[in-house]
Amino acid sequence: MIDAEYIHDTVIQNDNKIILLVVDGLGGIPSEATKLTELQTANTPNLDKLSETSSCGLTLPVAPGITPGSGPGHLGLFGYDPLKYYIGRGALEGLGIGIDLLPGDLAARGNFCTVDPQGNLHDRRAGRIKTELSKPIVTTLNGIEVASCTTDVFQVQDYRFVLRMRGDELSEHIGETDPQQTGVPPLDCLALQPGGGPTANYVNRFTSQAKELLHNEPIANMVLLRGWSKLPDLPSFPETYKMKSSAIAAYPMYRGLATVAGMEIIPTGATFADEIQTLKDNFNGSDFFFLHYKPADAAGEDGDFEAKVKTLEELDKFIPDILALNPSVFAIAGDHSTPAVLASHSWHPVPLMIHSKWTLGDHNKGFNEYDCRFGSLGTLEAKYLMSLILAHSERLTKYGP
Amino acid sequence: MIDAEYIHDTVIQNDNKIILLVVDGLGGIPSEATKLTELQTANTPNLDKLSETSSCGLTLPVAPGITPGSGPGHLGLFGYDPLKYYIGRGALEGLGIGIDLLPGDLAARGNFCTVDPQGNLHDRRAGRIKTELSKPIVTTLNGIEVASCTTDVFQVQDYRFVLRMRGDELSEHIGETDPQQTGVPPLDCLALQPGGGPTANYVNRFTSQAKELLHNEPIANMVLLRGWSKLPDLPSFPETYKMKSSAIAAYPMYRGLATVAGMEIIPTGATFADEIQTLKDNFNGSDFFFLHYKPADAAGEDGDFEAKVKTLEELDKFIPDILALNPSVFAIAGDHSTPAVLASHSWHPVPLMIHSKWTLGDHNKGFNEYDCRFGSLGTLEAKYLMSLILAHSERLTKYGP
Repeated sequence: MIDAEYIHDTVIQNDNKIILLVVDGLGGIPSEATKLTELQTANTPNLDKLSETSSCGLTLPVAPGITPGSGPGHLGLFGYDPLKYYIGRGALEGLGIGIDLLPGDLAARGNFCTVDPQGNLHDRRAGRIKTELSKPIVTTLNGIEVASCTTDVFQVQDYRFVLRMRGDELSEHIGETDPQQTGVPPLDCLALQPGGGPTANYVNRFTSQAKELLHNEPIANMVLLRGWSKLPDLPSFPETYKMKSSAIAAYPMYRGLATVAGMEIIPTGATFADEIQTLKDNFNGSDFFFLHYKPADAAGEDGDFEAKVKTLEELDKFIPDILALNPSVFAIAGDHSTPAVLASHSWHPVPLMIHSKWTLGDHNKGFNEYDCRFGSLGTLEAKYLMSLILAHSERLTKYGP
Repeated sequence: MIDAEYIHDTVIQNDNKIILLVVDGLGGIPSEATKLTELQTANTPNLDKLSETSSCGLTLPVAPGITPGSGPGHLGLFGYDPLKYYIGRGALEGLGIGIDLLPGDLAARGNFCTVDPQGNLHDRRAGRIKTELSKPIVTTLNGIEVASCTTDVFQVQDYRFVLRMRGDELSEHIGETDPQQTGVPPLDCLALQPGGGPTANYVNRFTSQAKELLHNEPIANMVLLRGWSKLPDLPSFPETYKMKSSAIAAYPMYRGLATVAGMEIIPTGATFADEIQTLKDNFNGSDFFFLHYKPADAAGEDGDFEAKVKTLEELDKFIPDILALNPSVFAIAGDHSTPAVLASHSWHPVPLMIHSKWTLGDHNKGFNEYDCRFGSLGTLEAKYLMSLILAHSERLTKYGP
């Protein structure tokens, strides 16, 4: 774990290159028809062959039975205990749309909503108003000025936005304004802990101005705010592990998570092919590369078994390109399982392989949920993965004399 | 774990039914002659078939190498960390005979003993005096009155009884009166921590009255008291997991353990067939059922390998009845191993299977210590079982955004 003293005391520097490929939503469960998982179904000759000479296992993203969101899923893989370090909903939403969040900034997830003439909530999502219709409302809200702090509203999608507050000593221990029901007015923001008073006041000034400004908007005349959060204060990934560390990710949320850990972001394109090209072009410039592959999770979330199988087959074609770079360690992991059968993230342990000069070579028959069970790494909490990666890259000296 | 914040924050309610069958002393080790364990020897076609389509694994009741008593064994399965929550000997003995223990009550395990005319211990167990002979002595002791607290003596068996003290601010931090040797007098009860003085005084008043009352008893003329304990203050199982939770157990100790966790007890008969009938009759009335099967442990404790094999074969016949109820999750676990070869509880990991719509189907070849090793659940601490059970019953939402 990144904050374990034995890591601090044993990490040394060298020039060995590490690639950590995170396949979002990698794990699955069998389809009822074939009794095979997505990975078992997919034709992935490169992954399967690599697994023969790798150390394989399964990761538990958080703890047995626990289904992680993207935040805990990635923090674990980066070596942070996801039960200790937490990224709240507002901050994660901000990372997801790639806005600039500084330490101390407070972020909320916002909904446009509608209230009746008495001020009671009529629709908590304003009829799921489309992005093109909510865009001018975002512009309107950006005219709000609250003394002692700066407020900025960022469009997410449809009826959703992010409010970022920047000021001195903002508190995340304040209440949500969403009453979670209609027929009642939005809640005043209340301090939930001593010291939250000033921030709650800023929020109430923001929402009362929003109410005035949106008064005549026909489709969305009020806002609801929840998920107040700041970025957590994480120990630095590159400083702890003493490696120049870079992230290559097509999606903003994963770039955001890498930024929070202290990694540098290398700009890339929208596809995994772009990411691979970026990796090749920049391979001499860093020690550690976090490479993110999104399509498997997206297909799993859609509940599309065949589509998820295809994303894994697509990924497989890029494996030789990565191996051609000859990294000292090539690890393939997932932040969580996303079984198409469940159409959501799940708690199931996630296949893992680590390829290096020092891996045992598990004679694994394939890279999938079933065969990885029998690998030499066993089933381990994801927060321990980085220690294994560092060890295989000869960056961990002896613990204790 | 029941007290982990991530459990509190992620549990949701639904109508899915869960059955947790605890086979007491389930695990074993091979007989020297056949090199097969009790489970491997037993003809258990239903358990074996079920394991094919279940997720299998092994539980560590407490930690590697640790042999649990019944208390820690069950607390772990219910999701309590058995190293954090502890039920002392007196309280467990009380639960074992089904007496009413309230929060704050103090219980001790008592022995009848004999002392010589000088008051020195002659036999710490009074010749293992039989129940019918100790019964009138129990009645005599129930005549004792100690100011400021109520004392009640309950027969256990032979020379053993439970003393229950009920009063204000009783302390369990008081010394035992058993000197663990003969030829010396019973010890005075001493306070072991500040605040224990009044309770120690009550105990000494009780024992001096007991000495007087039993003075002329020919076979047991004194008492020894040890294992002072109260019930631990456990987070509520049904409240934490947001499920109506019921226990069906023929033996009082297991009903007692369920009561301490906050489960409701459904009255049942003396046999497992009675328990199954009770389960059928009450299946609509609860969300979660803890079903206890005792005979495997009893046979193991007797060191009777063949008898334990038979108890497992007997159990196997009831599996179709349970499956016919179509629970959303059917988990089979043990509180610890009781290898007949050892004739006692042991530290060996215990076979586990979870059957649900969302289990992988491990293609397990049988439900036994050997095959469960290769299951997808791996070897996990028992305290994580409930998280897995809740996940499989779709009661855990995502941890973290």
